[in-house]
Amino acid sequence: MTKLSGDKVRELDAKYNLHPWMKQKNMNALPVERAEGIYYWDYDGNKYYDMSSQLVNVNLGYGNKEIINAIKEQVERLPYIAPAYAEESKSRLAEELIKISPKNMRKVFFTCGGSDANESAINMARTVTGRTKIFSRYRSYHGSTLGSGNLSGDPRRFALENPAATGFIKFFDPYVYREYFNFSSDEEASNYYIAKLREQLTYEGPENVAAIIVESITGANGVIIPPDGYLQGIRKICDEFGIIMICDEVMAGFGRTGKMFAFENWGIEPDIIVFAKGVTCGYVQLGGVIVNERVAKHYEDTVFQYGLTYSGHPLGCAAGLASVKYYEDANILENVNKVGKVLGERLEEFKSKYKSVGDVRYIGLFSAVELVKNKGTKEPLVPYGRDPEGIIGKIISLLKSKGFSTFGRENTIIIAPPLIITEEELLEALKIFEEVLEVVDREYI
Amino acid sequence: MTKLSGDKVRELDAKYNLHPWMKQKNMNALPVERAEGIYYWDYDGNKYYDMSSQLVNVNLGYGNKEIINAIKEQVERLPYIAPAYAEESKSRLAEELIKISPKNMRKVFFTCGGSDANESAINMARTVTGRTKIFSRYRSYHGSTLGSGNLSGDPRRFALENPAATGFIKFFDPYVYREYFNFSSDEEASNYYIAKLREQLTYEGPENVAAIIVESITGANGVIIPPDGYLQGIRKICDEFGIIMICDEVMAGFGRTGKMFAFENWGIEPDIIVFAKGVTCGYVQLGGVIVNERVAKHYEDTVFQYGLTYSGHPLGCAAGLASVKYYEDANILENVNKVGKVLGERLEEFKSKYKSVGDVRYIGLFSAVELVKNKGTKEPLVPYGRDPEGIIGKIISLLKSKGFSTFGRENTIIIAPPLIITEEELLEALKIFEEVLEVVDREYI
Ligand SMILES: Cc1ncc(COP(=O)(O)O)c(C=O)c1O
Ligand SMILES: Cc1ncc(COP(=O)(O)O)c(C=O)c1O
Repeated sequence: MTKLSGDKVRELDAKYNLHPWMKQKNMNALPVERAEGIYYWDYDGNKYYDMSSQLVNVNLGYGNKEIINAIKEQVERLPYIAPAYAEESKSRLAEELIKISPKNMRKVFFTCGGSDANESAINMARTVTGRTKIFSRYRSYHGSTLGSGNLSGDPRRFALENPAATGFIKFFDPYVYREYFNFSSDEEASNYYIAKLREQLTYEGPENVAAIIVESITGANGVIIPPDGYLQGIRKICDEFGIIMICDEVMAGFGRTGKMFAFENWGIEPDIIVFAKGVTCGYVQLGGVIVNERVAKHYEDTVFQYGLTYSGHPLGCAAGLASVKYYEDANILENVNKVGKVLGERLEEFKSKYKSVGDVRYIGLFSAVELVKNKGTKEPLVPYGRDPEGIIGKIISLLKSKGFSTFGRENTIIIAPPLIITEEELLEALKIFEEVLEVVDREYI
Repeated sequence: MTKLSGDKVRELDAKYNLHPWMKQKNMNALPVERAEGIYYWDYDGNKYYDMSSQLVNVNLGYGNKEIINAIKEQVERLPYIAPAYAEESKSRLAEELIKISPKNMRKVFFTCGGSDANESAINMARTVTGRTKIFSRYRSYHGSTLGSGNLSGDPRRFALENPAATGFIKFFDPYVYREYFNFSSDEEASNYYIAKLREQLTYEGPENVAAIIVESITGANGVIIPPDGYLQGIRKICDEFGIIMICDEVMAGFGRTGKMFAFENWGIEPDIIVFAKGVTCGYVQLGGVIVNERVAKHYEDTVFQYGLTYSGHPLGCAAGLASVKYYEDANILENVNKVGKVLGERLEEFKSKYKSVGDVRYIGLFSAVELVKNKGTKEPLVPYGRDPEGIIGKIISLLKSKGFSTFGRENTIIIAPPLIITEEELLEALKIFEEVLEVVDREYI
């Protein structure tokens, strides 16, 4: 294949590609040429620390030989076969996923990503329970198809609410930092949030509720880590009313938090685990759901009415199998916990040192820095859902111009590097981050 | 990677995988080991003619060196980068798609498959027009996410109608073979169907209608080829009322009908083309939409509110670029038209020769055989939506046991081999098909 110049790649892109979540005028997307480890390079030879693992999916970084070789092997032998067939990589990956899941998990259904995986989870919950209502939270993102979009709580759902899909009900997140009250303990916070959820369920009729879905840890909307007792409380409510508990682990799963799945941090077992991203680290598209005995059993004698041409795509499954084995063989969790500790320490330093850093939240290599105008009042750097001057965009751009690549939403910036990052690399990258915090303190508040 | 036996692949599959559109009990999926050209092999060494190109997506057959090499190259260099960036394969594939599209087409948005592509098309149509209602047809399949599922007309949507998404309105297909009247010409048929559509639009208020979506040729629901004048009539209605015309070319596109897109057979231009399947022939998941000036323009100054982690996936785009170039370089359309002619002739012979063959419909290498109990009354071999004895399943199994692999729906069997099939291979395969028609005539009617 003849190679294009970076300018040409950019020019064709601007001319022919529609980019998500943006206005298209004067499109000027950075052309990326190649990537290796935790870095990617543009066509001018600039190197970027990928401090968000792209969209928190390239967990094992770029150029992973095991994943690459698995893809090459599969594409020669059998890149694709329809979902009705059995295929080695699909069989083996499903087995691996069950092995790393809680003991009550039974079967796996594969999709192409997180949105369609959440669609299948909704479909299952409604079919298995015979109920329609689905509870999800305001600060959440679950996808952009009609079902997964209406499941989402953040403003990205608005385009899918004309008209909105029915049966989707929102509740509040355990967003302790911005709660109306100050809680003195995790227990107190959990008791509050669970009581409010229970109250809302009562008004909706718990017998009408098919599922409660949460990101085990809210991701794009600010790495909101639930207080201890919260997920346990949801589990208890679900058991009490026969509601399906769905943990969306699309972003938080696959080692991100120092455990294979984020919910493990609180010792619970959902009924359905939704996964994507880290399962293949983005090398090939893959998502899906892992379901427990209750759900699997339902479909023994009932048709599972959901399917995609690319359910169980062999190339995706080959990439997934290699990735899941790599997490284990390379002992990735150990690195996450080790380097994650350093990340947490540095973030705490930033919080005490910089006026604009209102809160830092971190677990494993999953973290967010919440920017404020005033630490006392907690006034956010930009108000929710509105950033007319594009301040957060400017901060993200400044970071990127210095080689620190990441994304943010609202007044929060995500730091979630590939799980293979070394302590040294992390500290280098955070130096850049600090330089930018200095600018924020000086110019934006 | 250690290789498993076929039995082990089957056993793990039955234990751990959830299969779409089936009951899961006693799952006994055929394990497929490898594939080449128009054939695939199971672990017992049995060879199958892939006479449906799997799900009408493996258009260029298996083992295509150009596609394989493109994937290998891309996976080494840059398997993934987020949708916000520009990337060579994504830029180049978008350019190629615009080149092969009607002259008014401007931009491309990539998804992972057909369902999420249709979701984006609905989203666009509603946003661009500011209207909510979407017209689609009863005999159609557009996907299984909440939006694309409610768009679909066939029974696969039922699981997504509890509760149904709002704003989806169904109209009748131009199913001439089973129409209440006998038409004497295409013109008469088209006039009828367009008049009825116009009447229904009047009742719904055309000013409330965002889009009319049709499979240019109904695929899985029986290769229903519209009479000449029909698509032109829809185009005219859409122009009159400012309605977005969406052609779902997921199955019929990419050379299947002897043209690059199926709608070209009637000289029209939709506003949005939905594609998937043949764009990569399944080697990597890819789908998307191609939009015209009107739609593209809308998003210049308006945020395009839809996106997937895997929008514009570089590996998918690399496979797509190689595929689209191959269609052109290998002059695939010529083969489709040449071998398609033979297919049509043989099918007509079957229709005159076998009592159970009520109708045959074909265009290019896209065809369906509609089975009946009685040619005079046209009584279908099995009633719509019900096949308690699983007769069609038995016929499909019998075909497969003889090495002819395909699928069917209702009382119809699809024949849609890879577009690289030779005349000789086709005739060999159709011999098997004939053997089975003899059994059907003898045992099932
Ligand atoms: C928690 C969560 N769920 C679901 C999704 C949707 O996944 P996808 O973009 O692959 O459809 C995302 C994407 O960012 C996510 O973060
Ligand atoms: C015409 C048509 N549209 C959409 C789809 C859905 O595509 P996918 O299964 O890739 O989601 C299909 C799948 O068969 C189809 O035939």
